[in-house]
Amino acid sequence: MTTDTICALATAPGGALGIIRISGPQSLEILSRIFSKDLTTAQRNTVHYGHIVESDAVSQYQNIIDEVLVSVFRTPHSYTGEDSAEISCHGSRYILNKVLALLIQNGCRMANPGEYTQRAYLNGKMDLSQAEAVADLIASTNKATHQMAMSQLRGHFSSELAQLREQLLKLTSLLELELDFSDHEDLEFADRSELLELTTTIEQHITRLAKTFETGQALKQGIPVAIVGKTNVGKSTLLNRLLKDDRAIVSDIHGTTRDTIEDTIEINGITFRFIDTAGIRQTTDEVEQIGIARTYAAIDKARIVLWLIDSEPSESELAEMQDRCKDKSLLIIQNKIDKEGAPDHFSHLPLLTSHFLRISAKKAIGLDALESAIYESADIPTLQQSDVIVTSARHYDALTRANEHLQRVIDGLQQQLSGDLLSEDLRLTLDTLAEITGGQITPNEVLGNIFSHFCVGK
Amino acid sequence: MTTDTICALATAPGGALGIIRISGPQSLEILSRIFSKDLTTAQRNTVHYGHIVESDAVSQYQNIIDEVLVSVFRTPHSYTGEDSAEISCHGSRYILNKVLALLIQNGCRMANPGEYTQRAYLNGKMDLSQAEAVADLIASTNKATHQMAMSQLRGHFSSELAQLREQLLKLTSLLELELDFSDHEDLEFADRSELLELTTTIEQHITRLAKTFETGQALKQGIPVAIVGKTNVGKSTLLNRLLKDDRAIVSDIHGTTRDTIEDTIEINGITFRFIDTAGIRQTTDEVEQIGIARTYAAIDKARIVLWLIDSEPSESELAEMQDRCKDKSLLIIQNKIDKEGAPDHFSHLPLLTSHFLRISAKKAIGLDALESAIYESADIPTLQQSDVIVTSARHYDALTRANEHLQRVIDGLQQQLSGDLLSEDLRLTLDTLAEITGGQITPNEVLGNIFSHFCVGK
Repeated sequence: MTTDTICALATAPGGALGIIRISGPQSLEILSRIFSKDLTTAQRNTVHYGHIVESDAVSQYQNIIDEVLVSVFRTPHSYTGEDSAEISCHGSRYILNKVLALLIQNGCRMANPGEYTQRAYLNGKMDLSQAEAVADLIASTNKATHQMAMSQLRGHFSSELAQLREQLLKLTSLLELELDFSDHEDLEFADRSELLELTTTIEQHITRLAKTFETGQALKQGIPVAIVGKTNVGKSTLLNRLLKDDRAIVSDIHGTTRDTIEDTIEINGITFRFIDTAGIRQTTDEVEQIGIARTYAAIDKARIVLWLIDSEPSESELAEMQDRCKDKSLLIIQNKIDKEGAPDHFSHLPLLTSHFLRISAKKAIGLDALESAIYESADIPTLQQSDVIVTSARHYDALTRANEHLQRVIDGLQQQLSGDLLSEDLRLTLDTLAEITGGQITPNEVLGNIFSHFCVGK
Repeated sequence: MTTDTICALATAPGGALGIIRISGPQSLEILSRIFSKDLTTAQRNTVHYGHIVESDAVSQYQNIIDEVLVSVFRTPHSYTGEDSAEISCHGSRYILNKVLALLIQNGCRMANPGEYTQRAYLNGKMDLSQAEAVADLIASTNKATHQMAMSQLRGHFSSELAQLREQLLKLTSLLELELDFSDHEDLEFADRSELLELTTTIEQHITRLAKTFETGQALKQGIPVAIVGKTNVGKSTLLNRLLKDDRAIVSDIHGTTRDTIEDTIEINGITFRFIDTAGIRQTTDEVEQIGIARTYAAIDKARIVLWLIDSEPSESELAEMQDRCKDKSLLIIQNKIDKEGAPDHFSHLPLLTSHFLRISAKKAIGLDALESAIYESADIPTLQQSDVIVTSARHYDALTRANEHLQRVIDGLQQQLSGDLLSEDLRLTLDTLAEITGGQITPNEVLGNIFSHFCVGK
């Protein structure tokens, strides 16, 4: 049980308004001490206009710090589940600091990062995976990351896990049933094949979930793209063109300017991240050997490779590139098609039509088609908000470990081990899955680690 | 009458929460189209939990953009005086942009800077000087600028102006009375001395107000301080020491970091701004002639001059410096007192004890006393929130012009001009003062100029 009352600035400083959040049993008592009205009996979900006042101990003068709106929330109908309030102040740093200082002088404590959400979790307002989704939602920068975070916050992942838990519990009770009737040899055999089938189904379900982590990571961090090609083929011109076009396209609605994110572009709500090959921007002076090593390193890290050419590659060059990119998407791009004498036909590339594009980075010809090709190469399914994509390494780790335990159950079933030997591994599978939603008692250091990545005020 | 409904982000992007404001007659209709609940009949000052939803026209799929809290305000009980709402969203830029885009698609228009406050003014919620105080309040960074803005917002300036207006109207009716009885010659004479006395009182009151502008400007922009002295006397060491100490002292409450403001320090809630003499930081290589010219320029711009010495100045040097600083505060500071052989007595400086300090910038000796001396030299009266300080050049200009008209009334009274010749100047005085609060019809370009300096969302 939390007994202290916390406060924090929940908005970024520097706007017209700033919101200060208070949560805890004493929220309204403490706030009433510095507010022009008594809020201790205020009804839930009501807004109150008044002044934040500082009393000068010496002069007894009442200094008005701000004219504010206070929203009152009552346990359990609040974000944290506790009595809480939000003070909407003018966005001056002086005022915001002053109001926080007054709250602290009157009994509040500064909240730790994520402490509001942590309290929401501890008070049963959401499970741990939902709590983690809050941080992802705040950090979401495009449609894909937003969809994934919202799906998780809405509990789609949690309900898949609940479904798995139900099946595992069914498995457990079937095993117990088997133990009770273990003197009936023929019965046991029938049960075993049923058990094995059910266990395998669960194992496949968990594997399917774990496999989404790759997509989740790619969407969260941006899909890595490498631009490779010979010196002077126009790599940096193309990169600058793609980045610049994107900057123009995504120019935000007035008042919400976006931080400059180096070398990423967005296509249809998905982020593509250009791998910093260091060589790309100034290859002219490079010793050829270093250039090649860098190119290979960039290809290794990429999911999509843009191979820029301005003349026909030799058959061996083509073969080598295709070999290096065999588990990636390779787009072969002829640049400088605006130049006189640019080849319009390549004898070695007749079969690659869908992965062969002709552009002029300088004259901005063919770039829309290139962006479409990059997007399609990513091969990301269109996400619905009900789709479950694992985005957290913690969840992926738990799913992987759960399946290790479950694999031992499968092995045991196949080796006809007795039920009591299997039930321990089944219990471990259940416990490991429960780590994700925090259904089991979660150690403090795990919670600390999760919530320390939040911003203050959430 | 405004008939359109505006929306804007009212907080800085990047926090845990972001607040989007809507105001105008259609606020609740438009919001209800994208909110999970109908708010058109919602009571004033209530908070509603729900979802911002985007309907996909193709798939008919309801995409949840965010889980939000909506505060509902009803005309005339709102900041703007109109029906309004505030949506408290998660602070993701993607979400905030999306919600704004949905509002605009459903009939809102992006608000101009300061448009909420402009509507508050147009709807009679505050006068023009109070509206201007809102921007000052948001920009306030210390106690002094906060006090001045809050005083103006609370209407202290407005009520002084109302008082002046009342006296001017009394003057006008006395003049009219005089006209009615203009055939009684003896009566006229008595009235004139009374009129002159009243007019002079008003003129002095306006002069007093206008004079506070200098203090207002100094407090708003920081009181200019120059550090001067010979090469190697320790000027830059002292400056860095003062700036660094201040940086440590004002370290803000977690979560509200302050922008780095170059070369200003705060003492007792007042900002002191060190004049960029360019020479101060690298005088060693300077030709002496340029050094002196720069020193004089810095002194001319300063209100407080810190003259750093490490040996006794000659009588002529002292006399020249005192002459140059005769309308400023001059502090003579002996630096390097930690050094062996540092003089502990100056024969020419016996009478300057209160403006003579001994420090070691390097060893941080005597700096508290120096800061106190700087603060006292500024000679700023301790401000109460009821004190009226003119901070706006627009107001200062209006006060000055009003007094020019009033001076013509005084001249006319002294020259025994007839009342009807004076009443025109009296009317101009009244009109000019009314510009400050916007009591007269204010031209659109004046309003535009005032509100364009606001942030969006206020």
